[in-house]
Amino acid sequence: MPAGKSGPRGFVRDLRLRWACEEAGLGYEVRSVPLKDRGPEHFARQPFGQVPFLEDGDITMFESGACLLHLARKSEALMPRDAVGEAETLQWTIAALNSIEMVTVPWWFIGLSADADNPLEGWVLKRLAHLDAVLARREWLAAGRFTVADLLMADVLRVPKVRAAGDFPSIRAYVDRTCARPAFKRAYDGQMAHFAAHDEPA
Amino acid sequence: MPAGKSGPRGFVRDLRLRWACEEAGLGYEVRSVPLKDRGPEHFARQPFGQVPFLEDGDITMFESGACLLHLARKSEALMPRDAVGEAETLQWTIAALNSIEMVTVPWWFIGLSADADNPLEGWVLKRLAHLDAVLARREWLAAGRFTVADLLMADVLRVPKVRAAGDFPSIRAYVDRTCARPAFKRAYDGQMAHFAAHDEPA
Repeated sequence: MPAGKSGPRGFVRDLRLRWACEEAGLGYEVRSVPLKDRGPEHFARQPFGQVPFLEDGDITMFESGACLLHLARKSEALMPRDAVGEAETLQWTIAALNSIEMVTVPWWFIGLSADADNPLEGWVLKRLAHLDAVLARREWLAAGRFTVADLLMADVLRVPKVRAAGDFPSIRAYVDRTCARPAFKRAYDGQMAHFAAHDEPA
Repeated sequence: MPAGKSGPRGFVRDLRLRWACEEAGLGYEVRSVPLKDRGPEHFARQPFGQVPFLEDGDITMFESGACLLHLARKSEALMPRDAVGEAETLQWTIAALNSIEMVTVPWWFIGLSADADNPLEGWVLKRLAHLDAVLARREWLAAGRFTVADLLMADVLRVPKVRAAGDFPSIRAYVDRTCARPAFKRAYDGQMAHFAAHDEPA
């Protein structure tokens, strides 16, 4: 699974895939793709010019969320095998992508340059408040246990600017306990070590 | 699958589920949820207070994208059964949710109130340009055939403001041919008829 050559270390999305493989005990290898000079070969694998993408036998996939659901089919450590547990895991995985990240990422992006009011501020706070209410009543999002939905949701929520948005104690505790998992630490350390090993002169 | 009581007729997301059921020949029934006075019972089923959600035997799901992937597992009309075709369908379904809609929906939302420059304009146009390049070279997104990924992507792209963004002839032709499918027309007509039958005095 090629990672980005530069970018925000510790937050590039290959971390999600590393983390899933670590939770599931799946072997993996990470290669780099230069951020500069991405050519037709890169766009052929990732039509939006991003990372990561995943190679697994005959299968090549982009979209970290899709890669996570693909990996989750391989291991009960990531997703229960019963139909109801699988459906709950699927719905919360999609919620992380399309109800939370769909608001937090554009909000974060606008915040990079806007010095005035962020037009997405109210929406972000409302979505996080709904999620905080859910997490006040349960330890994990789906099926009463840790699943790939928690892995993804925690990765969406651990972004420093998102963590600092509003006062959501249940979200804070949830991110802390999810990122305290040894598999997260191995994935995080792995990404940082990868960047360090592949540093190039500027 | 309960739909919203009001909202933008013809674009409420239960249409995605109606369309999938129509493509797959799955029987379904749609019920309404009042938009006003959504109480704890509604939030228990849909933590963000939205629609649609799906009831299927023991399974209750929210997130239209998750519901679509759930329905796609039931019918080869929505997703091929081979591993590579399934992976391609999954990646493009997630791309519709997290690479396209993650930009188009906040951009549309900001455009509702902002009279100045939309800070997401450049990002939207870039994402659509990448997608237009993909669609210039193929009829359907995944597996060389219509899949649930096309259903979702076309629904994301057919929003009038998105259709009017930039000049992307391959996207325009793609949305036209996807929405020309009889199953889309039945789903659309069904949603409009549902609203008409459930009109209440303002």
